[in-house]
Amino acid sequence: MVEVVTFGEVMMRLATPGFARFAQAPYLELSYGGGEANVAVSLANFGVGAAFVTRLPKNDMADGAIAELRGLGVDTSHIVRGGSRMGLYFLESGASQRASKVIYDRAHSAISEIEVGSVDWPRVFQGARWFHWTGITPALGDEPAAVVEEACIAAKDAGLTVSADLNFRKKLWSRDKARRVMGSLMEYVDICIANEEDAESIFGIKGAEVNTGVIERETYVDVARQLTEQFGFKQVAITLRESFSASRNGWSGMLYQDKQAHFAQHYDITIVDRVGGGDSFAAGLIYAALQGYEAQRMVEWAVAASALKHTITGDYNRVTVEEVENLVKGDASGRVQR
Amino acid sequence: MVEVVTFGEVMMRLATPGFARFAQAPYLELSYGGGEANVAVSLANFGVGAAFVTRLPKNDMADGAIAELRGLGVDTSHIVRGGSRMGLYFLESGASQRASKVIYDRAHSAISEIEVGSVDWPRVFQGARWFHWTGITPALGDEPAAVVEEACIAAKDAGLTVSADLNFRKKLWSRDKARRVMGSLMEYVDICIANEEDAESIFGIKGAEVNTGVIERETYVDVARQLTEQFGFKQVAITLRESFSASRNGWSGMLYQDKQAHFAQHYDITIVDRVGGGDSFAAGLIYAALQGYEAQRMVEWAVAASALKHTITGDYNRVTVEEVENLVKGDASGRVQR
Amino acid sequence: MVEVVTFGEVMMRLATPGFARFAQAPYLELSYGGGEANVAVSLANFGVGAAFVTRLPKNDMADGAIAELRGLGVDTSHIVRGGSRMGLYFLESGASQRASKVIYDRAHSAISEIEVGSVDWPRVFQGARWFHWTGITPALGDEPAAVVEEACIAAKDAGLTVSADLNFRKKLWSRDKARRVMGSLMEYVDICIANEEDAESIFGIKGAEVNTGVIERETYVDVARQLTEQFGFKQVAITLRESFSASRNGWSGMLYQDKQAHFAQHYDITIVDRVGGGDSFAAGLIYAALQGYEAQRMVEWAVAASALKHTITGDYNRVTVEEVENLVKGDASGRVQR
Amino acid sequence: MVEVVTFGEVMMRLATPGFARFAQAPYLELSYGGGEANVAVSLANFGVGAAFVTRLPKNDMADGAIAELRGLGVDTSHIVRGGSRMGLYFLESGASQRASKVIYDRAHSAISEIEVGSVDWPRVFQGARWFHWTGITPALGDEPAAVVEEACIAAKDAGLTVSADLNFRKKLWSRDKARRVMGSLMEYVDICIANEEDAESIFGIKGAEVNTGVIERETYVDVARQLTEQFGFKQVAITLRESFSASRNGWSGMLYQDKQAHFAQHYDITIVDRVGGGDSFAAGLIYAALQGYEAQRMVEWAVAASALKHTITGDYNRVTVEEVENLVKGDASGRVQR
Amino acid sequence: MVEVVTFGEVMMRLATPGFARFAQAPYLELSYGGGEANVAVSLANFGVGAAFVTRLPKNDMADGAIAELRGLGVDTSHIVRGGSRMGLYFLESGASQRASKVIYDRAHSAISEIEVGSVDWPRVFQGARWFHWTGITPALGDEPAAVVEEACIAAKDAGLTVSADLNFRKKLWSRDKARRVMGSLMEYVDICIANEEDAESIFGIKGAEVNTGVIERETYVDVARQLTEQFGFKQVAITLRESFSASRNGWSGMLYQDKQAHFAQHYDITIVDRVGGGDSFAAGLIYAALQGYEAQRMVEWAVAASALKHTITGDYNRVTVEEVENLVKGDASGRVQR
Amino acid sequence: MVEVVTFGEVMMRLATPGFARFAQAPYLELSYGGGEANVAVSLANFGVGAAFVTRLPKNDMADGAIAELRGLGVDTSHIVRGGSRMGLYFLESGASQRASKVIYDRAHSAISEIEVGSVDWPRVFQGARWFHWTGITPALGDEPAAVVEEACIAAKDAGLTVSADLNFRKKLWSRDKARRVMGSLMEYVDICIANEEDAESIFGIKGAEVNTGVIERETYVDVARQLTEQFGFKQVAITLRESFSASRNGWSGMLYQDKQAHFAQHYDITIVDRVGGGDSFAAGLIYAALQGYEAQRMVEWAVAASALKHTITGDYNRVTVEEVENLVKGDASGRVQR
Repeated sequence: MVEVVTFGEVMMRLATPGFARFAQAPYLELSYGGGEANVAVSLANFGVGAAFVTRLPKNDMADGAIAELRGLGVDTSHIVRGGSRMGLYFLESGASQRASKVIYDRAHSAISEIEVGSVDWPRVFQGARWFHWTGITPALGDEPAAVVEEACIAAKDAGLTVSADLNFRKKLWSRDKARRVMGSLMEYVDICIANEEDAESIFGIKGAEVNTGVIERETYVDVARQLTEQFGFKQVAITLRESFSASRNGWSGMLYQDKQAHFAQHYDITIVDRVGGGDSFAAGLIYAALQGYEAQRMVEWAVAASALKHTITGDYNRVTVEEVENLVKGDASGRVQR
Repeated sequence: MVEVVTFGEVMMRLATPGFARFAQAPYLELSYGGGEANVAVSLANFGVGAAFVTRLPKNDMADGAIAELRGLGVDTSHIVRGGSRMGLYFLESGASQRASKVIYDRAHSAISEIEVGSVDWPRVFQGARWFHWTGITPALGDEPAAVVEEACIAAKDAGLTVSADLNFRKKLWSRDKARRVMGSLMEYVDICIANEEDAESIFGIKGAEVNTGVIERETYVDVARQLTEQFGFKQVAITLRESFSASRNGWSGMLYQDKQAHFAQHYDITIVDRVGGGDSFAAGLIYAALQGYEAQRMVEWAVAASALKHTITGDYNRVTVEEVENLVKGDASGRVQR
Repeated sequence: MVEVVTFGEVMMRLATPGFARFAQAPYLELSYGGGEANVAVSLANFGVGAAFVTRLPKNDMADGAIAELRGLGVDTSHIVRGGSRMGLYFLESGASQRASKVIYDRAHSAISEIEVGSVDWPRVFQGARWFHWTGITPALGDEPAAVVEEACIAAKDAGLTVSADLNFRKKLWSRDKARRVMGSLMEYVDICIANEEDAESIFGIKGAEVNTGVIERETYVDVARQLTEQFGFKQVAITLRESFSASRNGWSGMLYQDKQAHFAQHYDITIVDRVGGGDSFAAGLIYAALQGYEAQRMVEWAVAASALKHTITGDYNRVTVEEVENLVKGDASGRVQR
Repeated sequence: MVEVVTFGEVMMRLATPGFARFAQAPYLELSYGGGEANVAVSLANFGVGAAFVTRLPKNDMADGAIAELRGLGVDTSHIVRGGSRMGLYFLESGASQRASKVIYDRAHSAISEIEVGSVDWPRVFQGARWFHWTGITPALGDEPAAVVEEACIAAKDAGLTVSADLNFRKKLWSRDKARRVMGSLMEYVDICIANEEDAESIFGIKGAEVNTGVIERETYVDVARQLTEQFGFKQVAITLRESFSASRNGWSGMLYQDKQAHFAQHYDITIVDRVGGGDSFAAGLIYAALQGYEAQRMVEWAVAASALKHTITGDYNRVTVEEVENLVKGDASGRVQR
Repeated sequence: MVEVVTFGEVMMRLATPGFARFAQAPYLELSYGGGEANVAVSLANFGVGAAFVTRLPKNDMADGAIAELRGLGVDTSHIVRGGSRMGLYFLESGASQRASKVIYDRAHSAISEIEVGSVDWPRVFQGARWFHWTGITPALGDEPAAVVEEACIAAKDAGLTVSADLNFRKKLWSRDKARRVMGSLMEYVDICIANEEDAESIFGIKGAEVNTGVIERETYVDVARQLTEQFGFKQVAITLRESFSASRNGWSGMLYQDKQAHFAQHYDITIVDRVGGGDSFAAGLIYAALQGYEAQRMVEWAVAASALKHTITGDYNRVTVEEVENLVKGDASGRVQR
Repeated sequence: MVEVVTFGEVMMRLATPGFARFAQAPYLELSYGGGEANVAVSLANFGVGAAFVTRLPKNDMADGAIAELRGLGVDTSHIVRGGSRMGLYFLESGASQRASKVIYDRAHSAISEIEVGSVDWPRVFQGARWFHWTGITPALGDEPAAVVEEACIAAKDAGLTVSADLNFRKKLWSRDKARRVMGSLMEYVDICIANEEDAESIFGIKGAEVNTGVIERETYVDVARQLTEQFGFKQVAITLRESFSASRNGWSGMLYQDKQAHFAQHYDITIVDRVGGGDSFAAGLIYAALQGYEAQRMVEWAVAASALKHTITGDYNRVTVEEVENLVKGDASGRVQR
């Protein structure tokens, strides 16, 4: 039943209402999220059997996170309970020229103190086809990094495809440490996902500057080419975000495979909530891969799914396959569905 | 005192807050609305004596709907009480590429079981000048359709102008049935109002494709021409919506009269709530007609009134004559009114 | 510690939630604001010692206003207590073609009945460098106007720089009275701040119409030139707002000094709340002046600060020096700050 | 259609949510209320034709108040528009040992500046049977007091029963002035309503202290006896409140008629909102009188109606005749009505 | 894994906030509930494997109900999808002398149109130990009643214990029909649960009036005795509610077994939400039975669990075994758990 | 200006709305609180100059806490900034038999990592008269305990009165460690405050069981006597809470001085929020001591102040001297203050 397994941290998300700054908020909206949990939920929404593995303390907050995941159809049976606190983050939504602001309070969280051996990976991966993780998990500490490697090895042993979203977070570790740890984990990765900055931040890989009108596109192709050459990925997918403002973004993506780059349609997005945008792209990509779509359709799917995410409040991409399909087919009109 | 009478269904409207999807909503915002009630409220806001006729059960929900209508100045004295439930609909507001979603729960509502003879139409129309209905009412069932005809006959007997908004709802009836029923009701109609798709959906009338740069405009004129020829309307009004996204629409309208088409100014709208947009257009048109405005001013008024509706939360168009006039005169600046 | 003193009225601000019209609001959001308080808060947020002087009654509402100001770092120790009511205003936020609406209920407020001699201005100004007031305060009544003059004289005596924001409010007084009163107060003013209409409304000063493509810019320069000639200001700053709609504005500003006009960058703003926009410009200007910035940087700073204000709910500009600096340096991307 | 007319002030009511103190409230709940409006709404809820007369400014707030009254079935057609502001009051709900707190901001309200002759009382009273006012209205100023007298004279001329609720408000006038003004107005009053303190506050009438176990009851009977002797009332009704705490009250009432005192059942009330409790008693009494109930049933009805009011949020007593009847009959069980 | 199966209707629950009457509610709080779903959730909260069987349409509202149930740990895999609407009910919470009010809108719901054969009961009951239903389900229509019988037969075949809560709802069917249908279904029931009125409403069974001080207790014992004699139940459990007011109830229960009556402790309850109180009693009883507790402990457990339910908002009893145990052991102090 | 200094941790307080359990909360109400901050705020509300010393990280959350404290009149100028996180706690309000639940997430908070020497205590205490701390602070870790001692020594050097609230928290440390650390800190303490359990939990001091009807009172007197003998306190104050349920408590207190016990009036409290009840007692006691009240009046004042706290939402006791005085004088009627 479970086709995809993801591993990482799920946090409480405490967001100010509307556009209130932290100091103005009489209350904080409570939901849950985290890169890998977001991918699992997105896949479960698409009807894909998805399991999310993490470590959470035994308290009501963690119970709430698990109940929501389970309600959304995610298999939570492999979550390890222990530790003393759940990570959390505070979110203030920006608008126009004012950026959104995220304040993390995740140090000492249960998963940051997870130990090698506490998850029975072979059992987790039984019957599964895909393992996904992001660069946030190894950044949480040496133990989580070791568990990622442990999981990767088990996943390869079990014949799973492994995807990783580079997801560099400068507050969690230095570029040096990221390069060292991620560099060694890349050997297990089949599909590498990144945003336009990750490759440079972690691996120092910058696209060549070309003197033509298509310069930007070529830059990203060059980054994908270098990543592929260096780590032997089967596919490299890159999200392409134009940040016009906190209220409006351009959004697209590229999939590089067999030395060929496939660019998806471009969307002009009025933003409701962009946190989790990259995760919804990864989920769309995995969904499309599991359906056996060819490269162009894969990236179109991933970009459409994640374009829709920007219109959803919360980390999780609560959209259906049908809604993504409609957008892929070109209906971006937003006409009322009665 | 009552100049305009409308007849149809008013429903509870239960909307998720902000941009929340149904599954995310801890509560639903409660208001009331429905095509013909929306027109009555809009006219009452403009200071026109308006009565709304419907059938509602005897319960607190229906009492709430009536109290709100009465508070807004609508004459509710002819509302028939009976039946066991009030129709309702659930609304989820879309954004950007994600469409708004409406889920109706109106089957077996009180008005769908109304019987011919239960409204004393001659008394209702006493002293009135105008009767308005929409294609939703006959779509609710054979009895409502018969009551619409009963009302139309009484209205014509009493010398009222009759307007109808075609308003095709594919979930309520088939195109075939709609054509048959609406076709026979059209004989009582003086002014036909439609959006860009209704005429084709119900009557199979498509505008001719013309090979010029003004192709779209000509298409709508052609539709109006065909409608007029087929049914002998005095005027045909068509709303022109460009759905760029769920957050932004283009909006205008056309009034066809004496073989002449009058196009209104075009508005670029940042959408707050577009449900009831068409109804506010109809109300603007009726208001303008009652004032004796000539065709161009009529359509300008209707389009300005309905442009403003898109900025109002809820089905009802809560704007004043003064606000519409200001927009007609060209002040779309949105400057703070102190 | 206190570098800047402002004097005027702070009101309760009672705003409908979201885009609700007054008649739709089950509750009103409570905050506080007023031109000169807004400037003081903005400066305190920038780390500048700021004191706000006003007169407020002894009741819980006024206590709330003072507590918030003090919490935000404003010195409230010179506020005079007395009178029977606190002014208030009701706010309904507009969108797209529908304008925001402000209804004032400030007559008979404590400050409108302030008396000359009730503030010990020499003590207030001890150690300070700047005094700021706006055209709203003298418009509140003859006594407040007299107190403004009293304060101006004391400020000049103490060697402070005096800035005034013309801020014409037509509901508070006639153009004639405004010209008379403001005209005589201008003699104390070093830096005059105005929006694009104030100079004409109060002093009848219109920019010359020039037959060139840069006509608008020249118009404003001409206004500043005339103001300077007539009143001998050291600097004249003008905010330049393009009201595309209630949801979107163009925003910039100009600083005229030594017969030279300095125009700031232009911002395209998606509006969250534009009340207090002009005040945040004044605060930015004062901050920049206190830092000793030269003219171009001053106006860039003021425009960037006030561009950000449009993204903040409430009258007060809750942004930091760092946030303004980032925008001045060109980062308007709104990318998430993690 | 209109049987009962009431005259007085309706205010905006701005209440903190839950048990929040003023300084804690991020928003204020908006509703409307005022002694005489409360009586009119209560009667309209009971199905009695009720008109409310007042003076209100022409603005959105006043429009909102009128719309709500009209929606609740109150005739608002005689409301005079004019003046510059609507009175308002701030409410903080107490609990246990902490009292609720009301801060009025009603000086200079439209009705306080009403002029004799501005209401066409003979037309207002056409067809009516009852006129009700409270001691708050003459306390608003000399003009309102004169209009009350004008109304009383017209009411007596038209053969109406006149009831007055003494309702002494110490912040509005002195005891001396109250005695003078109210004393002369009492000549028009048939039925006098008071709480346990009003008679002493206004007229200095205290019940005799009797040395028996039924001392309290006798005290109130004595007060009623004295009031009747002094002013010749047909009936005197007194509400009997035991304030155990802000969360729990004892509640009952007494009706004195033909030298006979009738005490109603006693209720032990868990309080939701006690503002408007006395008004709901008056409305219950008037309803019962209009039904021709004898004295005991009248006071039982009035006390039951007002007991229920304490469970309703807002000034208005939103209960039905059926609900009051059930309570009069003895069902105070609060069992779920399915 | 699944030990207990329940079958019935789950509805949307739309409740006014706080103590607002329907006409005052700007929004309705959304949750889900229904007798048998409530029992399943309660058991899942206690760690018992519980499955809930129903029929729900394919729409977002039903998806929401299922997701919540699944999140709470209930097995929803046997829910049949089909039909056009989900039942719903509106709730207004009472206080003091004002009763709570429930308005059902459940006619034509998906489950009311369920057909015999649509649930594979033998598969559902595989491995289970208990089947629970209530008198509401057969009251929904002849088909649901037939499916209850179909389920009962399958349950008995599979060796399950069958419990039924009589739960008479007078708006759903007549006493006559209830007696006929319920009478024939009783033959499958091992444990009969009822409140103090059900037995009389459905079966006309009243306790004998005995002339002693323990009259009430004896009455209930007599009812249980008669029920047992007539239908051969192994156990009869009766909830004992004293409705002092809508804010305060007395609460206890009795379990009759082997001609012996066991009364539980009595609780004095300050009510937060009493909807679902009876269901939480049933769930507590089933839990205790599954643990093999003897009669006295069973009823203590059921009463304690349901006492706690009255403090929880919503239909579902969100308490843990530990919390119930603490109360059973006597800690009703409500001291803060830190 | 500063008379009283308190030292400890202030946390974010994230509370579910109404009576919602954690798993039901769509949002959490944000405020701030902590034993010693609560005392400082309470004193500032009484008009006493109060300073609160703590260590907080440099982030928006901590800024919010400081701004609120400053707004409430507390001197925050000695707060040390540093560390990476602010402690927080989650609160779920109980009702009736269900207890409130507090989940702390305060490990690794900034203050738990404070270092000796980081606060300039002599400067802090300049001009002050009183130093107050609670048993929570030394429980946060060895460093905080050392800083408490450092502060105590400086306080005694500066001639301040030192009060300590024992406040045992079993989740923060063991009884053994508490006894050791607290035991050695007691030497600096003049006034010891405790609830009915602290003395036993920390020092193993239990009152003697006496065979009389006044057993409980005597028990507490005995505890105070032993504490005094063991540590030489000038005064021992004990809060006396009767936990009837989470909704209703009995409340009183005792002050032991010169071998004499003074018991205050007893209050029956309907609870709004009892978190911070003990702190408000301490603040009342300190206020009364600073006024020079004799023992009986001191304890009456402390008990009345803290009785009122139970009616206030949030940790802070937002009441005025006037309100406490009224209650001390016997007005517990909760009558509306107009």
